[in-house]
Amino acid sequence: MERDNQPNEGSEISSARCPPGVIPLHVAFDVNQLEPYLPQHSHGPSQGTEAVLPHVTLTYAQSLDSQISLAPGTQTVLSGPETKAMTHYLRTRHDAILVGAGTANADNPGLNSRFADGDGVVGLARQPRPIVLDARGLWRPKRDGKVFELARKGEGKAPWWIVGASDQLEDRSSGYHEAVRLVREEFGGKVLEMRSEKDWDEILRLLAAEGIRSLMIEGGGSVINSLLEVRNQKYVSSIIVTIAPTYLGKGGVAVSPNRTGSVNEARLEVVKWIAMGQDVVMAGLLKEL
Amino acid sequence: MERDNQPNEGSEISSARCPPGVIPLHVAFDVNQLEPYLPQHSHGPSQGTEAVLPHVTLTYAQSLDSQISLAPGTQTVLSGPETKAMTHYLRTRHDAILVGAGTANADNPGLNSRFADGDGVVGLARQPRPIVLDARGLWRPKRDGKVFELARKGEGKAPWWIVGASDQLEDRSSGYHEAVRLVREEFGGKVLEMRSEKDWDEILRLLAAEGIRSLMIEGGGSVINSLLEVRNQKYVSSIIVTIAPTYLGKGGVAVSPNRTGSVNEARLEVVKWIAMGQDVVMAGLLKEL
Repeated sequence: MERDNQPNEGSEISSARCPPGVIPLHVAFDVNQLEPYLPQHSHGPSQGTEAVLPHVTLTYAQSLDSQISLAPGTQTVLSGPETKAMTHYLRTRHDAILVGAGTANADNPGLNSRFADGDGVVGLARQPRPIVLDARGLWRPKRDGKVFELARKGEGKAPWWIVGASDQLEDRSSGYHEAVRLVREEFGGKVLEMRSEKDWDEILRLLAAEGIRSLMIEGGGSVINSLLEVRNQKYVSSIIVTIAPTYLGKGGVAVSPNRTGSVNEARLEVVKWIAMGQDVVMAGLLKEL
Repeated sequence: MERDNQPNEGSEISSARCPPGVIPLHVAFDVNQLEPYLPQHSHGPSQGTEAVLPHVTLTYAQSLDSQISLAPGTQTVLSGPETKAMTHYLRTRHDAILVGAGTANADNPGLNSRFADGDGVVGLARQPRPIVLDARGLWRPKRDGKVFELARKGEGKAPWWIVGASDQLEDRSSGYHEAVRLVREEFGGKVLEMRSEKDWDEILRLLAAEGIRSLMIEGGGSVINSLLEVRNQKYVSSIIVTIAPTYLGKGGVAVSPNRTGSVNEARLEVVKWIAMGQDVVMAGLLKEL
């Protein structure tokens, strides 16, 4: 594939060179099955300001009872090894990964890819940009948080933090300013400002202007539910959902958009179901209503 | 298969003889894939009182956001033609189908099978017994309701109605007594009395004593959620769930058991995912916790 010919920025890590605890992930299925749902641009340095909005892939893992975690602010393992590897493959196919501040605070996520292609984990050129969406400025990353450690080691890109305008910030104490300094001090880390909360047109234009052509949106619940609302469905290019054969039981974080009419809030078309290990993966496009 | 040699009680209907509006359903997948999840007894007249509890198959169709209908008391079409045909096949493999009173009142369900095997819809010998579970005695069937029409035409069995003891009935007015007369007047219709509400041990013993060796439980939400609770999981022999690629949006009837602990309420094992048309079917067994 074309992107294999990109310069790897010197960070290609062979399996043998993986530090302890880093397990490269291999996918156990034909990745071409997901091709119709993925962005088709090539990787490599951005060509600068883009006129079009990025390709948005909405992707998450849920239980049969459509919950992504047992409770707000807790991380719940749902994916089996096969679908976890798929997620890490998908990350290599997008310029950026976006999560909400709640997820970033709860999970201490690395937001890089451990997908192994050939002889080692993919290099920095194919790593996605981690983006934290946070209108109220509530992300409180730690200096030794995974996302910064990976950036320092060249195994992931430094994060971008999208915050609301200063009058929208919930807490402009020293904690906020420390976080801003932390994000900015790493090479490539940025703090971007948006005017309105959850205005996806604005968010996607902001990212397009920064050279992002494809965005994988991974959570949490409120980010996903916002994109599934009728008015925002036009921004979603494709949906890839992993379903694990378990019931979390009432009271967790559920994926289900607010009902705005009297019929189904969203329908999918061009649907493909792929069994992977104990889980199933559904890929589809949102049908225009 | 053995059951094909059973006397067909004179009701085998060939496709050509189907009355207008009755469309026989054919399954478009290898039915053997579901065999490990289905009861293994042969059909035919019951051998009388059984010592063991019936095989219970819990089966329903849900949206991605784990809802089975848009609102209580409304019927929502979720299954595509392929998974609908599968449901009608499953009905031929069970002695009885059970639904709650809410579903029976909302859907006016036929609760028979339109599965076509060979040259027509399966005969009465392979039709399941419709059972309405109704501790509070709220079912108000109409004389021209589907379940009675089918019984009169020999295309389905007359229903059984399981009601609570008289002190549990919510409404012992003439409506209730009329319903009792209606159920009893059809050949084979019965009103059975149970002592406690949602005591599955009692319900299943009652049905075993009536010769039921296998039971397909189809809904509604409160019946399904009750069986998914930790204390009732031992009564569920297998689970077969259809998932349709749509989101109903918040506010419908959701399948999700009450959380009784701090971890997943239920986990499945021996899981199989089968893509059928636009939907997927998951078959599995509940893992002992």
